[in-house]
Amino acid sequence: MVNIEDLEELKQISETNETLLLEKLLNFQCVEIAEFLSGLEQEKLIYFFKKLPEDILGDVFCEFNLDIQNNIYNNVTKKFFSKIFSSMPSESRADFYKQLDAKNQVKVLPFLSKGIRDDVISLSLYSDNTAGGIMSTDFATLYKDMTVQEAFTKLRADAPSKKMIYYAYVVDSEMKMLGFISLRDLILSESNQHISDFLHENYISATVDDDKETVASMIEKYALIAIPVLNDEKQLVGIVRYDDAISVIKEEQTEDMEKMMGIVSDNSNQTYLETSCFQNYYKRVGWIVCLFFLGILTTLVLSHYELLLSQIPVLIPFFPMISAVGGNTGSQTSSVIIRALSLKEIKINDCLKVIFKELQVAFLMSFTLFIFVYCEVFAISYFSKIKNYNPCWVAFVVGLALFLQVVVSMILGALLPLIVKLLNKDPAVVASPAITTIVDVTGILIYFSIASLLL
Amino acid sequence: MVNIEDLEELKQISETNETLLLEKLLNFQCVEIAEFLSGLEQEKLIYFFKKLPEDILGDVFCEFNLDIQNNIYNNVTKKFFSKIFSSMPSESRADFYKQLDAKNQVKVLPFLSKGIRDDVISLSLYSDNTAGGIMSTDFATLYKDMTVQEAFTKLRADAPSKKMIYYAYVVDSEMKMLGFISLRDLILSESNQHISDFLHENYISATVDDDKETVASMIEKYALIAIPVLNDEKQLVGIVRYDDAISVIKEEQTEDMEKMMGIVSDNSNQTYLETSCFQNYYKRVGWIVCLFFLGILTTLVLSHYELLLSQIPVLIPFFPMISAVGGNTGSQTSSVIIRALSLKEIKINDCLKVIFKELQVAFLMSFTLFIFVYCEVFAISYFSKIKNYNPCWVAFVVGLALFLQVVVSMILGALLPLIVKLLNKDPAVVASPAITTIVDVTGILIYFSIASLLL
Repeated sequence: MVNIEDLEELKQISETNETLLLEKLLNFQCVEIAEFLSGLEQEKLIYFFKKLPEDILGDVFCEFNLDIQNNIYNNVTKKFFSKIFSSMPSESRADFYKQLDAKNQVKVLPFLSKGIRDDVISLSLYSDNTAGGIMSTDFATLYKDMTVQEAFTKLRADAPSKKMIYYAYVVDSEMKMLGFISLRDLILSESNQHISDFLHENYISATVDDDKETVASMIEKYALIAIPVLNDEKQLVGIVRYDDAISVIKEEQTEDMEKMMGIVSDNSNQTYLETSCFQNYYKRVGWIVCLFFLGILTTLVLSHYELLLSQIPVLIPFFPMISAVGGNTGSQTSSVIIRALSLKEIKINDCLKVIFKELQVAFLMSFTLFIFVYCEVFAISYFSKIKNYNPCWVAFVVGLALFLQVVVSMILGALLPLIVKLLNKDPAVVASPAITTIVDVTGILIYFSIASLLL
Repeated sequence: MVNIEDLEELKQISETNETLLLEKLLNFQCVEIAEFLSGLEQEKLIYFFKKLPEDILGDVFCEFNLDIQNNIYNNVTKKFFSKIFSSMPSESRADFYKQLDAKNQVKVLPFLSKGIRDDVISLSLYSDNTAGGIMSTDFATLYKDMTVQEAFTKLRADAPSKKMIYYAYVVDSEMKMLGFISLRDLILSESNQHISDFLHENYISATVDDDKETVASMIEKYALIAIPVLNDEKQLVGIVRYDDAISVIKEEQTEDMEKMMGIVSDNSNQTYLETSCFQNYYKRVGWIVCLFFLGILTTLVLSHYELLLSQIPVLIPFFPMISAVGGNTGSQTSSVIIRALSLKEIKINDCLKVIFKELQVAFLMSFTLFIFVYCEVFAISYFSKIKNYNPCWVAFVVGLALFLQVVVSMILGALLPLIVKLLNKDPAVVASPAITTIVDVTGILIYFSIASLLL
């Protein structure tokens, strides 16, 4: 494993003794070599990268970020690049190819073998968000009537070029999938047994058009190392591995969080520091402006009460508290519900159960807060310079408004994600910022209705 | 794969024809059988569960939630339970054992074979949050001087009881780890070669005390199927598999989100509907009350401006907007930074870069909002009943306050997570609810300072 001292040492060596550096580098994993090289200046990076042994070029290359990949692409001969390209895992290869412009795509193709050329072109046709878009074609196939002995021979012949041979997929002559066997089965069997003797015909599979998040959650649910991906004709066209599933799960999480915070996902793989400030602005401004327009409601309602407020100024200091507490409890509830929906812990028809539970929690929460607010408001209005009202009465009025506001906010926080889910949209859009703005309006209405009624 | 029609069909069959049901059930995966049985009444669940073939009892049992597991435990004989228990994956077995009270733990042990008894006891000693707490002891070992032929023989002997044989770990006579080989290597080799010929001595490993999140991210980074876990004497004591890593990553995400929304994580595996309303209340009330106390600041500052407000009532309607926009932009920024920190895209010493970038985004955002706010305020104050001030001037003052508030909120949103990270705490605590409450105070200060200066 690489650690900081190793990196420092390597950096020093890279200045002086390059043979030693290359020797040392080979003790590291490909992802670590890529990490180290990424820290060097561009020229040095390319210089050392070119000196790596041919068999790891592809694996190191696919660990670089896109900028570095394109840099290398532009600074090596097409012939050398085809070497890298041919040894890359099939799905990373297709991803890189996809982002090249048409002119460059055409330039790369002639240097590739026919098999790889076809593979790249067909893989790059699938949409990024589907199983097809993340699948790999590095899998091993067997035939049903093979003996274990024959299977071993075929796997041996295939394996150097096939990354995933822990499962071998059993297909007929038209590549229609019949089932799978695991290497474990092969090892436990006798060499004269037939594949058909321990074929798993009851298998889990995905189709090329399945959403990649669905595929990832199947891999998770069934604890698969890889899931076979079939086309419309039930032919085996690829596999999605567990490590791709982990990436999808992480991406999905970032997307959910971005959505919850009103940030437009751009599906790029750029890190925070790589994203320009205009992109950052673009990702965030839409939602802020939408919420701003929603917020105009608050202003309009408040304008309506302008006269009441100038007559009862004692109400003013507590208004932001009502709206803040409403926003906090509402957004807490909505994130609990959004998370439960996304983990499939609740379904739409649990709606009544959810509301009933949140109502109970809301009463407990409101009651707790009522006590605190009563004390606070009493103390502040007792010491206030303006004394038209009995502090006890003001405290009760504000406390009551808060009580109602918390109940309403929590019920809205629970209902809105469910409603959005019912409309088949992503419930994350009604998370924190949206719900806060919405309950601002209910806060004002509750506060001033109660105040004008009771004061 | 199970789908809703299948489930309905199975449910109907379960009423009438139990032999057919059991036959049909066996076409499903263990996780699906558990899903189906979980939907039945308790008595039926136990009745059908007992009739399942012995070799899948353990795998089905570990897919049930804890309530159902304990129900089964209490309703079958200890002898039958020991059958289930012995065939469970080792880490699930230890998890179940851990949550039994001491009296029941003692009751189970005598029915187990010595090997399993030792395994359960030693695994249950590790803390839940460490590699030891999630590791499995179902792994296969080989010795360095074995031939490929001998290795196959040992794996065959071990495999039925060892779930994970895609990697085999090579140890010395004291279980000290020397390296590993993958099944792929074995298959590619000749039967008279020695294990030492293709031993990977340069391997990634974890130690029993490593945080489970660290272990999960190692599995992710190096795309491993399993990572070996060593004790202080470098002895191999377990492995953590990729599917455990996926669970850890998901749990961590829920925790992050809960922390961001001010919800206390209780580390229980209960789903939303299983959690009682008191637990729900308990998980959420702490943060809400803390924020409430923080919010008293807002009220105090506002009280200070009470007189100013009653003199310039035209200011009131716009105040919530200033604070809402500040809260939204601030919490957006903080979640971007928190996410980037958690994905390790930025480090503490990128602090200046981050602030500089956010400053640029903030200016773009503020300028956009200034234009909208100017128009809004102008329109509203133009039609307002109270006309002491020139609408143009009021709009400019409010717009300027908003401009400053957005810049301050976004810089705070970027700075606070970095500061919390610097103090070695989890930056998620300063997400949305906290930052919203904090910028409420800056909002009032900015708004009223500018208003009292310019109006």
